[in-house]
Amino acid sequence: MATATPLGNIKALAFDAYGTLFDVFSVMALCEQLFPGNGTALAQLWRAKQLQYSLLRSLMGRYKDFWQLTEDGLLYASKSLKLDLTASKQRQLMDAYLNLTVFPDVSPGLAALKKLGLRLAILSNGEPKMLDAAAKNAGIDAVLDAIISADELKVFKPSPQAYALIETTLGTSPREVLFISSNPWDACGAKAFGLHVAWIERVTSEAMALACVESETVAPLTMFKAIRTQMDELGIAPDYRIRALSELPKLIAFHES
Amino acid sequence: MATATPLGNIKALAFDAYGTLFDVFSVMALCEQLFPGNGTALAQLWRAKQLQYSLLRSLMGRYKDFWQLTEDGLLYASKSLKLDLTASKQRQLMDAYLNLTVFPDVSPGLAALKKLGLRLAILSNGEPKMLDAAAKNAGIDAVLDAIISADELKVFKPSPQAYALIETTLGTSPREVLFISSNPWDACGAKAFGLHVAWIERVTSEAMALACVESETVAPLTMFKAIRTQMDELGIAPDYRIRALSELPKLIAFHES
Repeated sequence: MATATPLGNIKALAFDAYGTLFDVFSVMALCEQLFPGNGTALAQLWRAKQLQYSLLRSLMGRYKDFWQLTEDGLLYASKSLKLDLTASKQRQLMDAYLNLTVFPDVSPGLAALKKLGLRLAILSNGEPKMLDAAAKNAGIDAVLDAIISADELKVFKPSPQAYALIETTLGTSPREVLFISSNPWDACGAKAFGLHVAWIERVTSEAMALACVESETVAPLTMFKAIRTQMDELGIAPDYRIRALSELPKLIAFHES
Repeated sequence: MATATPLGNIKALAFDAYGTLFDVFSVMALCEQLFPGNGTALAQLWRAKQLQYSLLRSLMGRYKDFWQLTEDGLLYASKSLKLDLTASKQRQLMDAYLNLTVFPDVSPGLAALKKLGLRLAILSNGEPKMLDAAAKNAGIDAVLDAIISADELKVFKPSPQAYALIETTLGTSPREVLFISSNPWDACGAKAFGLHVAWIERVTSEAMALACVESETVAPLTMFKAIRTQMDELGIAPDYRIRALSELPKLIAFHES
């Protein structure tokens, strides 16, 4: 008999990529190395504009892929901070986006979930080649059943069509999928679409991007933790709140159990 | 004979409202009064989330009017900053949005432009009642030929449909309209749609919202000026850059001249 739990029918897990599996602020060290004293501000503003441009271009009907938006965000951030972004520095920083660090819980967490018989996928706004490179370089490509990019439809999350790609790619209905994201707006978007959703808390990522992007001073990490725990006011909320991938098995009752 | 200039056929001026005519940070004083030591952070984060929610809800296909988004942004900001937003304080702050200060150049600038025979309008994401109240309370309602809200179509700028409302309301073709906004994304959106666009620099508004939203320290105003001068990287640029409405007559050659 299957155990009766709200998640008893979960067959697949879909993860957001940037900020959820990959720590986009792992580029901060390189930012600081290239622009001493401005690394944190550059990394934060870069991320904030990358996200904003995905939303603005969607509304404007002028889609560009996430690689281009990442580059545009970097250009804006360096201009805004009056930094001399040479071609060489630009190339180094963009390359860093292909070699992001994963959070410490990611590799063991994905391996454990895979052993439980779950299908594992990424659903990201990222451009396919940059996602593939990041997954491969972080050594998590082999454990993933699919790397799904919203770029396939030329839309961005939180557009509902983007979340629908999980079903068309994996063949699993929305009720069979648990979606995991650290980004409050992404968690809300997935829930509005009809997925089960776990919001994972990360102390960096968007919280740092929102915080103090252009200040000369940087708030202490404890402040980012406080920010991180604040869900967005979008009239909808995710189902679960976790702090690491290791909590997921407890959340899930398998159809085999 | 009409003077031959690029703007020789301009018959109407359409202005963005919040951050362009109305200084949304005129609520900062009340924020500080209600939450001593947190006024600036509250006002900045409130504005940042109000804007972000208009974009996110558009993509999610879950439209709510701008009055609701303004309230949602206030809720988020106060929760994030751990402020006790009582019903009374919430009402006072929302009411302040109906009584925003206009920038010093606005009243004399609009009067001078009106005398030149131009039609004057607001094109805003604001909910109609909040726009009407703000215009009336600031004493600029009489000089405006129309207050156009994107709410009419349940879309937000920078969606092209929002900018098309100028033509359907005033009967002027895009080539006959000069649009003025302080928000870089709005200036780009209007230009992408096909309007003539002047980007007006304001030292507060979005620049402050983007800057240092949750830091314990607030950057000096000179820093905001530096930020303000940074156009977005959206693959398009406005035609003109001004610092006050008083510069507009020089920009415009009238069909009567």
